[in-house]
Amino acid sequence: MKLYNYFRSSAAYRVRIALAMKGLPFEYIPIHIAKGRQFEPAFGEVSPQNLVPVLELDGGERLVQSLAIVEYLDETHPEPPLLPSSALARARVRSLALAIACEIHPVNNLRVLGYLTKTLGVTDEQRVAWYRHWVDTGFRALEARLASDAETGTFCHGDTPGLADLCLVPQVANARRFDVDLSPYPTIARIDARCRTLSAFQRAAPDLQPDAE
Amino acid sequence: MKLYNYFRSSAAYRVRIALAMKGLPFEYIPIHIAKGRQFEPAFGEVSPQNLVPVLELDGGERLVQSLAIVEYLDETHPEPPLLPSSALARARVRSLALAIACEIHPVNNLRVLGYLTKTLGVTDEQRVAWYRHWVDTGFRALEARLASDAETGTFCHGDTPGLADLCLVPQVANARRFDVDLSPYPTIARIDARCRTLSAFQRAAPDLQPDAE
Repeated sequence: MKLYNYFRSSAAYRVRIALAMKGLPFEYIPIHIAKGRQFEPAFGEVSPQNLVPVLELDGGERLVQSLAIVEYLDETHPEPPLLPSSALARARVRSLALAIACEIHPVNNLRVLGYLTKTLGVTDEQRVAWYRHWVDTGFRALEARLASDAETGTFCHGDTPGLADLCLVPQVANARRFDVDLSPYPTIARIDARCRTLSAFQRAAPDLQPDAE
Repeated sequence: MKLYNYFRSSAAYRVRIALAMKGLPFEYIPIHIAKGRQFEPAFGEVSPQNLVPVLELDGGERLVQSLAIVEYLDETHPEPPLLPSSALARARVRSLALAIACEIHPVNNLRVLGYLTKTLGVTDEQRVAWYRHWVDTGFRALEARLASDAETGTFCHGDTPGLADLCLVPQVANARRFDVDLSPYPTIARIDARCRTLSAFQRAAPDLQPDAE
């Protein structure tokens, strides 16, 4: 398998964690998003959305959208499972993952921040305030759920890491880059710290990727 | 079941379509998002994220995040299926749904547009240009995939409606409200029109909901 990748992409980071948890080797193909390499025609052929990650299977099929890729990996390589077995628990885990993937990350990715700066002419200060506002809005809600739900354990759901955790850790890494104060989110911080003691999460970390700067 | 709902919410609209396709009756509980009713304490108890939809099961469990709710409904009420049976096809359908739910909708929902206006002071013209920019960016990529993939049929995947279609129709409805020119997206327009001939899609439409204005 090949993973079209960018060390700093949260969405690619999620897939790297899943691949590492499943013990699946892959070829790392770097696409420099900050330099706009995703808009070059060669990559446009790979991904009409001009987004990473793209997982290319050995048969040549290309999968896009990080959560769809992770669900595919979980269906085709069930051990260790990234989702619990009951439908209700699966809904909880997916909803935690989506609370990050749909509510926080899309509003703060590089292309949105670029539009704010280049097209709307917002200041650096306003851009950082925007970033923090959406992280805080999302993390406040997530912290409330994680802190009060009986299902929360060592990880987002019970005592094994899964789909929600592999979304959480990249989002926290991103928040840290923007100097977001994490002290109002002790449950998030605790789970993030616990995840980062696991080798799958460590190997997927941005700093250890071949294109890290 | 109860669905905390807002007639104009795209995410709630997705769940309404899924419930109608599965033939599941539900109690409609309107939450007036444009009036900020999601921030009232009573609803904050229901949804710490202050978002609709929330599906409350007969046992009192509350499910959030539209795609997690739809997957739950599909797992617990398998007929008619909203996802195909092969892992590869499931990944394709999920990725089409997520291309809407993660790339287009979050950047254009009411609270983001509100922040642009109230906090960043952008003009109405800039706000509409923002909306159209993200719809166009997302629809261009989606149209390219739908138009070229052999798996596209009468609907987004083959000849039965499913998870991708129930994301597509609410997004197209929203784009129409903002007068987005749909002529560059003939495949999207064709699938949307076909879906809207089906009674499940018709019954879920914003204009027919009890809180429609």
